[in-house]
Amino acid sequence: MEGALEVKNGRQPPFDGARLLALLDQYDIDLLLVSTRHNTRYLTGGYYYPLYMWDAHARRTQYLSFLGIPRGGLGDSFFVGRPGETEVIREADVWLPQCYEGEKIASLSIAAKAVEVLKQRSLDSARIAVELPSLPADVFELLKAQLPQVEFVDAVPIMDGLRAVKRPDEIQRIREGTRKNQEALAAVLTSGRDGATTAEIADRVATEFRERGLHFLYALVCAGPSYFRAPSVKRSWKRGHILHIDAGAMIGGYIVELCRTGCLGKPSRSADDLLQGCRDLESAATQVLRPGITAASVQRTAEAFLADYPLGSHGKFIAHGIGLVHHEDPVIEKSSDVPLEEGNLLSIEMEFKTPEVGHVKIEDMVLITRGGNEILSPGEENWYISNP
Amino acid sequence: MEGALEVKNGRQPPFDGARLLALLDQYDIDLLLVSTRHNTRYLTGGYYYPLYMWDAHARRTQYLSFLGIPRGGLGDSFFVGRPGETEVIREADVWLPQCYEGEKIASLSIAAKAVEVLKQRSLDSARIAVELPSLPADVFELLKAQLPQVEFVDAVPIMDGLRAVKRPDEIQRIREGTRKNQEALAAVLTSGRDGATTAEIADRVATEFRERGLHFLYALVCAGPSYFRAPSVKRSWKRGHILHIDAGAMIGGYIVELCRTGCLGKPSRSADDLLQGCRDLESAATQVLRPGITAASVQRTAEAFLADYPLGSHGKFIAHGIGLVHHEDPVIEKSSDVPLEEGNLLSIEMEFKTPEVGHVKIEDMVLITRGGNEILSPGEENWYISNP
Repeated sequence: MEGALEVKNGRQPPFDGARLLALLDQYDIDLLLVSTRHNTRYLTGGYYYPLYMWDAHARRTQYLSFLGIPRGGLGDSFFVGRPGETEVIREADVWLPQCYEGEKIASLSIAAKAVEVLKQRSLDSARIAVELPSLPADVFELLKAQLPQVEFVDAVPIMDGLRAVKRPDEIQRIREGTRKNQEALAAVLTSGRDGATTAEIADRVATEFRERGLHFLYALVCAGPSYFRAPSVKRSWKRGHILHIDAGAMIGGYIVELCRTGCLGKPSRSADDLLQGCRDLESAATQVLRPGITAASVQRTAEAFLADYPLGSHGKFIAHGIGLVHHEDPVIEKSSDVPLEEGNLLSIEMEFKTPEVGHVKIEDMVLITRGGNEILSPGEENWYISNP
Repeated sequence: MEGALEVKNGRQPPFDGARLLALLDQYDIDLLLVSTRHNTRYLTGGYYYPLYMWDAHARRTQYLSFLGIPRGGLGDSFFVGRPGETEVIREADVWLPQCYEGEKIASLSIAAKAVEVLKQRSLDSARIAVELPSLPADVFELLKAQLPQVEFVDAVPIMDGLRAVKRPDEIQRIREGTRKNQEALAAVLTSGRDGATTAEIADRVATEFRERGLHFLYALVCAGPSYFRAPSVKRSWKRGHILHIDAGAMIGGYIVELCRTGCLGKPSRSADDLLQGCRDLESAATQVLRPGITAASVQRTAEAFLADYPLGSHGKFIAHGIGLVHHEDPVIEKSSDVPLEEGNLLSIEMEFKTPEVGHVKIEDMVLITRGGNEILSPGEENWYISNP
C-alpha cells in the first residue's frame, strides 16, 4: 500500500489516499476519472481553471477537464485539461505528476485527448468510474464509441465515500461560512417590515451574504400561514405571522445551509409550540449523533421521538451529509446501516407545520466529533423578532 | 403560423415564437426539449426553481427539469419538473400551458416522467432536440433506452439561433451589468499597489463586483511582462509594469465580460504603442460592424487591418456573441457567412503582446444597432494608472 500512495515528485495529495485506494478496491475500479468542478477541486486541493466557475460557457460545448487516478497507485495519476492548462496546474502546485492538454478548449477535444491517454496507458479495456450524473451526454457518447472495451460505472459513490470525512481545514472553512450565514439570516429576520414580499426578503438574504463575502446560492422564503417556499412577488410577510428562511451559500466551494424562523411581532402560543417542537426534536437527534451509530438508528430515533410527542404528527426530521455537494454522504435514512464517522458533517432539518401557523423550520450544520457532535450553528433560545 | 403561435391560456411567451418555429422547421425538429438553466430561463422568461442555482446538488444525481416545445405549436408546450413545482411555475406566471412533475427530485425520476409524457403525446418516434453538451449522461442513457425509436439531435444550434437577437429588456440588463463591470475594473486598476499578487487582485475584482450587486464569475489577471493569466499567489504587479484584468460577471443570468489594461506608474512608450494598437484595431472593427455584414467579413476586416499595421504581427482580434452563454451566436470566424442582425450582442477582444511589455488587452461589449453598432462599454482614452 505504501508504494501505491507514493507520488514520486515529492508531493502529497490533499485527500486521504489510502481511503481512496480502498474505495477503488471495494468497487473494483481500475481507474477513477472525474470531471466535475467540485471533485476536481477536492482531488487537487482547491484547483480549478478560473473560467470553470459556471456552466454554459463556450460555444456549443462545455468546458471540461479530467482527473484520472488508477487503482495501481497515486503516482500514475494524471490530468487532462485545456490548451495551456499544464502551466496553470504547475503554478498552483497541484500534486498531479502528469498533465495532458486537449487540442482545443471544447469538451469533445479534451475527451479525445483523454481517450488517447487511456489507450497509451493500456486502460482501454479497463473498468472505469466516471461521474455519470454530470458527464455531458456528448462526451460520454464519444468515450463509449472510442473505447468500446471499457466498462463504465458511476464514480459518484466512490467520491461521496471519499469526501464524507471532512479534514480540519474543510471544517474550519465550513465553520466560518456557517457563522456568516447565521449572522445574515439573523439580520434579515430581525429587520422585517410588514408587507415585504418573500422575493424582496430573498434579495435581502443575497445582499447580506454578499456583504459577508459569501457566494449566494438560494433562499427559500416561507411566510406563514402558507407552506409555499419559492420567493414570490405576490406573497408577503404580515404582522403576527411567522416566516422561515432556508438559505444556502458557498464559501470556497463548500455549501453552508441553514434555516431559521422568525416572527413579525409577537408569535402566537401555537407558533411557540411548533418552535419548541423543532428544538425538542433537535435535542433528541443530537443526543444520539456520534461515531458508530448507524444512519438508520439516527432516523429511527427522530421518528420515535415524534411518535411520542404531543404535536409529533405535524413534525418531520430530515438529515443529510453536506459539503462540496448539497446532499452527500452520509445519507441518513432508515434503510442505511452505515455507521457515522468522526468528521462527518450533517445538515439536520427539524420542522413542524400546521395550517393555522404555517411552516416552522430550523436547520443546523452538525459535525460528528470523537465524543459525539457539535452544532456549528447553535440556535438562539428565543425567536428572531422583527418589529416587536 | 398564427395558430401555431397561440398559447390559448392567453399568455405570451417571452421569446420570438415565430423565430423559434422557423428554427424547428429549418432543423426538421418535432420537439425541442431543453434542460439547462440558461435555456429554461430564456424560454420561461426568467423562471428557474430557486435551488437550481448551481450544479452538484442532490445525492448521486443532479436537479433537472425539461421544457418541451413541439413543432406543431406553442400551445402544446409543457414543463416537467420536481414534485410540487407546478405550483411554483403557476405562481411565477410562466406562460407554459401544461406542467408535469416527477415522482422524486432526482434527475432520473424527472426523466422517467418526461418519457411518459412523450409517449402520451405520441412523440416516441419523433426527432427530438436535446442539449447534448449539457444533458447528464445517465439521463441520456435512460431516454435512449426508454425511447428507442426517437432520433435525438443537438438542441444547441436552435437555442443559440433563437437567443442571438437580444430583446430591449435583455439589452437594458446587460447595459447595466457592463457599466458596473467597467466601474469595478476601473476601481481596481487605479488603486493597485506595488507587489500585490495577481490572486489578490482577482479577489479585489470579486469584492468590487459583489459591492455592485454583480455575481462574480472569474477574473483572469495578467501582470506584464508575462503572458500568464490565471490568478497566482506567486506573481505580482510591479512598478512600471502593465496589468490586464479580463473579468466576467453575471447579472440576472446574463454574462458581462470586459478586459481593461492598466499600469502601475507611468507606462513605457512601447506599452503606449500596444494600447494604441488595441484602440486602432477596435476602430477598424467597429467601422464595419452593422446589420448585414457577414461574420467572415468582420474577421477579415480585422485581420486585414493587422496585416497593414506596424505592430500588427503582435496583434490579435477575437469576437464572439455573448449573452446567457459565454460564447454564443453569432460566431465571428472566417468560415461563417452568417450576416449580423440588429440586436446581436458581441464581445470584441483586441490584444497586442510583446515579450518586453506583456499582454495588453481591451475587451468591449458591442451591440449591433439598426444604423451600425454601439459600444456598451466605451473605453477611456488614457491608461488606467495606479500610483502615478
